[in-house]
Amino acid sequence: MRRIELAGCIAVGSELLGDRRLDTNSLTIARTLARFGVRIVEKRVLGDDEKEIAAAIGELLGRVDLVVVTGGLGPTADDVTRAAVAKALHRQLEPHPQALAWIRGRYAEFGREMPEVCNAMALAVPGARLLRNTRGTAPGMLLDVDGKVLAVFPGVPREMELMLERDLVPELAARNPEARRLTRTLLVAGVVESEIEGRVRHLYERFGRENVTILAAPGVVRLVLAAAGDEERAAGRLDEMEAAFSGILGDDLAGVEASGLPEVILTRMRGQGITLATAESCTGGLVGKLLTDIPGASDVYSGGVISYSNRAKERLLGVRAATLSEYGAVSDVTARDMAEGVRERFQADWGLGITGIAGPDGGTAEKPVGLVYWAAAGPRGTWHRSAVFPGDRGMIRTWSANAALDLLRRTLLLGSDS
Amino acid sequence: MRRIELAGCIAVGSELLGDRRLDTNSLTIARTLARFGVRIVEKRVLGDDEKEIAAAIGELLGRVDLVVVTGGLGPTADDVTRAAVAKALHRQLEPHPQALAWIRGRYAEFGREMPEVCNAMALAVPGARLLRNTRGTAPGMLLDVDGKVLAVFPGVPREMELMLERDLVPELAARNPEARRLTRTLLVAGVVESEIEGRVRHLYERFGRENVTILAAPGVVRLVLAAAGDEERAAGRLDEMEAAFSGILGDDLAGVEASGLPEVILTRMRGQGITLATAESCTGGLVGKLLTDIPGASDVYSGGVISYSNRAKERLLGVRAATLSEYGAVSDVTARDMAEGVRERFQADWGLGITGIAGPDGGTAEKPVGLVYWAAAGPRGTWHRSAVFPGDRGMIRTWSANAALDLLRRTLLLGSDS
Repeated sequence: MRRIELAGCIAVGSELLGDRRLDTNSLTIARTLARFGVRIVEKRVLGDDEKEIAAAIGELLGRVDLVVVTGGLGPTADDVTRAAVAKALHRQLEPHPQALAWIRGRYAEFGREMPEVCNAMALAVPGARLLRNTRGTAPGMLLDVDGKVLAVFPGVPREMELMLERDLVPELAARNPEARRLTRTLLVAGVVESEIEGRVRHLYERFGRENVTILAAPGVVRLVLAAAGDEERAAGRLDEMEAAFSGILGDDLAGVEASGLPEVILTRMRGQGITLATAESCTGGLVGKLLTDIPGASDVYSGGVISYSNRAKERLLGVRAATLSEYGAVSDVTARDMAEGVRERFQADWGLGITGIAGPDGGTAEKPVGLVYWAAAGPRGTWHRSAVFPGDRGMIRTWSANAALDLLRRTLLLGSDS
Repeated sequence: MRRIELAGCIAVGSELLGDRRLDTNSLTIARTLARFGVRIVEKRVLGDDEKEIAAAIGELLGRVDLVVVTGGLGPTADDVTRAAVAKALHRQLEPHPQALAWIRGRYAEFGREMPEVCNAMALAVPGARLLRNTRGTAPGMLLDVDGKVLAVFPGVPREMELMLERDLVPELAARNPEARRLTRTLLVAGVVESEIEGRVRHLYERFGRENVTILAAPGVVRLVLAAAGDEERAAGRLDEMEAAFSGILGDDLAGVEASGLPEVILTRMRGQGITLATAESCTGGLVGKLLTDIPGASDVYSGGVISYSNRAKERLLGVRAATLSEYGAVSDVTARDMAEGVRERFQADWGLGITGIAGPDGGTAEKPVGLVYWAAAGPRGTWHRSAVFPGDRGMIRTWSANAALDLLRRTLLLGSDS
């Protein structure tokens, strides 16, 4: 049997071309195919147009080894995927008695008569293996086209997932017995994408450009490493890659397979049995929100103060009025006072303070929009940093949150060294 | 100038073919095009492959009037969109001095020298109008190809949106002068989708089923009303629709064209010159985050306490130890004490308190996951509510935040009646 290397996806449905819905099935398909070393090289979304769907199937079958079509298998007039498959393969649809029996049976389960219109769902392309739908009514199809595979699934995610796992996976396992593609994600913080790229570029050559993907977000960068081959070999390769990259990244590597800095920090602090409180000004609760997105955060996170006014900074955090009038609410001294104040008020081991100008208004020549100060106060002192972050309000706030969490992460590392 | 009827989108980037990221730019593009009666008939996602991108551009230009390409305009070796556009149009890339000056200027703003590699972003296809990127570095391009339009934008959403609105919209307005499809969004809170559907269904017939879209999110529902025709007629029709729907929705209508409950509340409270403080337990800062997502929130929002531990509830909010031991941290009494406590500590006009079980762990038979209490304390008393919200941790937290904000909205309405 022919090996499957490359795949293409076609999602059918006019509703996927509007401004509200995206084809999310392709994510599930990509994840499943990756287990067998199969890479998606193209995705298309098409409306309910028989001719265009047929043309796309024909074109993709010419370029890849597997085409997965989802959607357009329902009983109504605008469900044209079955007809499009027939047209693409120059065959004629034929009634499929077994499929008809399945559909009738499905209706009978709910004590209903099958509507006439459902006969359309029992038509099949000659040569296709019909795939029973136990989570809905429309059957899927699996075809061998000159050694290539054409899979046709309903668009409803849970019906699609059923056939993907039950019917396509065994086919992939049979065709690609030893191929696996594993990935591992390195979370990097405190450095920007271009700087990381400069530092790790020489490793691309060693491991292959296509095996390293850089994904940048404000304040964190993810390096996704990939390795193909049988499971053991691929895992070994990933270990080797991880060692090479982490050697270069050093303390900038925040975690491996971590969802983000909050998870890294909560895990580390939980391990050390220590607690954290936050004092947020320009981030307005974002850091608390990010920490408490993670189940079980309460082991570590005692809570915090959102000090969105000077009065709150004074009354709830004990920031001195003199500090605010002399240095301003956006200053290193205020950030330090906030971190120390919240640590004391919550009786936490660590306190984090963030103050800045998220914009779009409120900036001055001296203190521009994007200027942020953050501080981490712990048992052995207080550290602070500042930066002028780029972007809009949302980006500046996300930068600020990640920068503060990263300072905490690094000061925790200092602590564990000594 | 040639009219634009049909459009195609191409999103470039290998990361969009994996199992993590979807092309979301096409939603924004679809929404913008719809204003000018332009319909997307095909979307493609391609990897960083010059030949394939060029072929797709050529093919789509043969079938539609407008092709929008996003992504692949960065400075690194895998950014091949510029070269692909040149190949598709059989032209050669040339250095563009103005673009180079923009990029150098962008780096200078941040006090940095432009890296050598960025020269690649200053190459342009001859005949293209270069689009300045004031939110990033990579310029976009707008081309007239035999009367059709080819727009090439960066993949970063906010950079793409800038050029879409600033550069493509005027082109569409010039080419499709009389076609308009206007929409107006009603924000509804405190009722679930199915209930709203039942109440407004009879209006579908009057205004056309295709002109009303219901979008449900945890705690709020949006009704998107649409009307086509010339600008004046469509606006008149929307006024008529809004009047009919708001007559039925009554106090459940929270706002028109509002981004969400935070905006509605901040606007109303700002108008009345009153202030708000929040005490959050299970939402962990989410309500503060949502309020401060909005620029200028500090006029109204004094800040809050994230009381993620009982000790924080006692020490920072003055919740009595007896309340916690007698009723528990998740109870109506605690929610009321939190709202009243934070109102007093922040000397705010209103205080909001939220406590609940966001899960996935921590539920009991008596107090299941999803059980949430919330309270609003104001000058004339304290109101509270509770519910068991469905869904996962993220959904329960969003439900809680919106439910609390909606209680505040309704109590503010009560106040203004008297």
